[in-house]
Amino acid sequence: MGITAIDRLFMQRACELAERARGNVAPNPLVGAVIAREGRVLGEGFHHRCGQAHAEVEALRAAGGDARGCTLYATLEPCAHHGRTPPCAQTMLKAGIERTVIGALDPNPRTAQGGVRLLREGGVVVEVLEDARSRALIEDFAVAIARDRPFVTLKLAVSLDGYVAPAAGTCRLTGERAAAFVRESRAAHDAVMAGAGTVRIDDPLLTIRPPRARLRPYIRIVACERAPVSPRSRLFANPDPDREGIYARTIVLAPAGARDAFIPLEAVAEVVYVGDASARSLDLRASMIALKERGIYSVYSEGGPTLAARLLTEGLVDRLHWLTAPVLFASESAVGALRLSPEASLRRRLVFDEVARLGDDVLFSASFVGDGS
Amino acid sequence: MGITAIDRLFMQRACELAERARGNVAPNPLVGAVIAREGRVLGEGFHHRCGQAHAEVEALRAAGGDARGCTLYATLEPCAHHGRTPPCAQTMLKAGIERTVIGALDPNPRTAQGGVRLLREGGVVVEVLEDARSRALIEDFAVAIARDRPFVTLKLAVSLDGYVAPAAGTCRLTGERAAAFVRESRAAHDAVMAGAGTVRIDDPLLTIRPPRARLRPYIRIVACERAPVSPRSRLFANPDPDREGIYARTIVLAPAGARDAFIPLEAVAEVVYVGDASARSLDLRASMIALKERGIYSVYSEGGPTLAARLLTEGLVDRLHWLTAPVLFASESAVGALRLSPEASLRRRLVFDEVARLGDDVLFSASFVGDGS
Repeated sequence: MGITAIDRLFMQRACELAERARGNVAPNPLVGAVIAREGRVLGEGFHHRCGQAHAEVEALRAAGGDARGCTLYATLEPCAHHGRTPPCAQTMLKAGIERTVIGALDPNPRTAQGGVRLLREGGVVVEVLEDARSRALIEDFAVAIARDRPFVTLKLAVSLDGYVAPAAGTCRLTGERAAAFVRESRAAHDAVMAGAGTVRIDDPLLTIRPPRARLRPYIRIVACERAPVSPRSRLFANPDPDREGIYARTIVLAPAGARDAFIPLEAVAEVVYVGDASARSLDLRASMIALKERGIYSVYSEGGPTLAARLLTEGLVDRLHWLTAPVLFASESAVGALRLSPEASLRRRLVFDEVARLGDDVLFSASFVGDGS
Repeated sequence: MGITAIDRLFMQRACELAERARGNVAPNPLVGAVIAREGRVLGEGFHHRCGQAHAEVEALRAAGGDARGCTLYATLEPCAHHGRTPPCAQTMLKAGIERTVIGALDPNPRTAQGGVRLLREGGVVVEVLEDARSRALIEDFAVAIARDRPFVTLKLAVSLDGYVAPAAGTCRLTGERAAAFVRESRAAHDAVMAGAGTVRIDDPLLTIRPPRARLRPYIRIVACERAPVSPRSRLFANPDPDREGIYARTIVLAPAGARDAFIPLEAVAEVVYVGDASARSLDLRASMIALKERGIYSVYSEGGPTLAARLLTEGLVDRLHWLTAPVLFASESAVGALRLSPEASLRRRLVFDEVARLGDDVLFSASFVGDGS
């Protein structure tokens, strides 16, 4: 019978449900599900957090006996493997689901299409949408599951002509709406990261702002290329959990060869030593691997231009949040958005997935053409 | 009775009519007019070109005797002075117009509000909208009438991180939709201008593309900072008028002190010598004044970064057309959008009046906060 406009509508609803758990589900993906018959919703569900019921199961519970003969909409291919919970595809067969519409196929190369196969073998009609919104829901999961590192979003706030500040130092370029967007984006990732230079100059808090409810403790990271930052930096202080949400200990990424200099930070942070005793500067790729090993599946990297350029040249960026402020700095002394060494050169094609006005500023949410890493 | 939603609708229609003459009316402004009663349009008109009827008069002719007791919508305040045609305000009074809605007040400081006064004295109810679209119609005229220079739009095609090319030379960054927009924008100005460097490297044609009908000959300008360009440059050849429209002789702006070097160009172009015999480099402000003296009220400046930076630092830009291409060039050898000398520095706040996707690219149409010149 193919995919109808009604199917797309219910899939949109399933995506909305999935979004509710943004920031809470790692290392699992966001998933939403809707059960419907003849245009009527009989059950809804979403995956709340790792260890809890999958979206499909939650929706089936809500529908109860009514699920028999229905269509189940799932933003992600139902699982066919035993994990923390029994396979959803099997539960759907038992419940008598007759047809299922899947938003995006499982991006895990080891399990992909297993759900589709199991369902079809059980006689269920399976339609696959592969729509942009369903795919966007698992964008971070797809990277983290297929690679040895977290999904990385790089945020830069830049003048129209590509400078982050009119002179040495940093500068608040963008307005309130952009700042709110950045706080939301932080909360949608497992951790936020800044370079040591930014921490020294700006001494930022890098907090997320409620009201967004977040169940998982929020992690802040400082990437120290060579030297430590001050243990009195504000992001080592634990924010008030009632007002500011739950924060984990701040992580300091440090080159293992400079351990002595970082020992004072061990009192205030979790210092992750990267590389071996000969490592005098931070290996960013190895740092990312170390973060994934600690259960961090997505990182929001902010400031500064040195860290940004290194992440980009090493192919460690999956998405750009480029915030353009309405100002021209054109000046020999202005600081370029991407501070590359003379021998480095980057020529990357992008896709502007989203271009949106945020107050006086403009957000480019962009991904890369071709493989980043 | 105030301004109603219907009033705004008719004003929109008047703006659409005015647009039809884009590129043809200088040194006059674009104006459109609608005559209506009780929601019914009785006459429409727009100013076609200098020396022909004003929009109000054309609309009154179309309405004939029905105009009595009607509302007349004019995108610009009707004139009260005798020019090439009798004052429109008087013609409106004679025709028995009872009410008029004006989009934008006359920006000419010598004649502003004259029409409003004359109409009110004659018993007409006058409402002034000052809406964005009506004001945008006369944006170029308002600059040209109040200053000694033309309205200047500066166009730049730039990578997301602010470079015009990955290395020395130029580079086509933007796609077909952006190119079509640029050709449209050229046709909407009296002339297009490029720097000598761009002409030497790119040898562009700088033509407009029909189908847009244009009544006034189209003018191309090369700004030569010190040295001439080759007389064999393509923009000195006259395009085929049937296929390409009507072109005037290309204008070369040259420093008067370098006259000898420019004499060969006099055979193929109108060489305008700027400054006196001591002028070895081009005075851009004086150049702009010379262009206005030749009836050029609006200039679309394209390429290259040197000319762009000089126009900006000298406060000669009224609008930016900044086309952002989906690419990062981050490189020490890439060419910045605005090539400023080390001592120069620009810090200008902008307003993004329009942000629009043009295919894969994004257009920022921006104006400056505070006075440019």
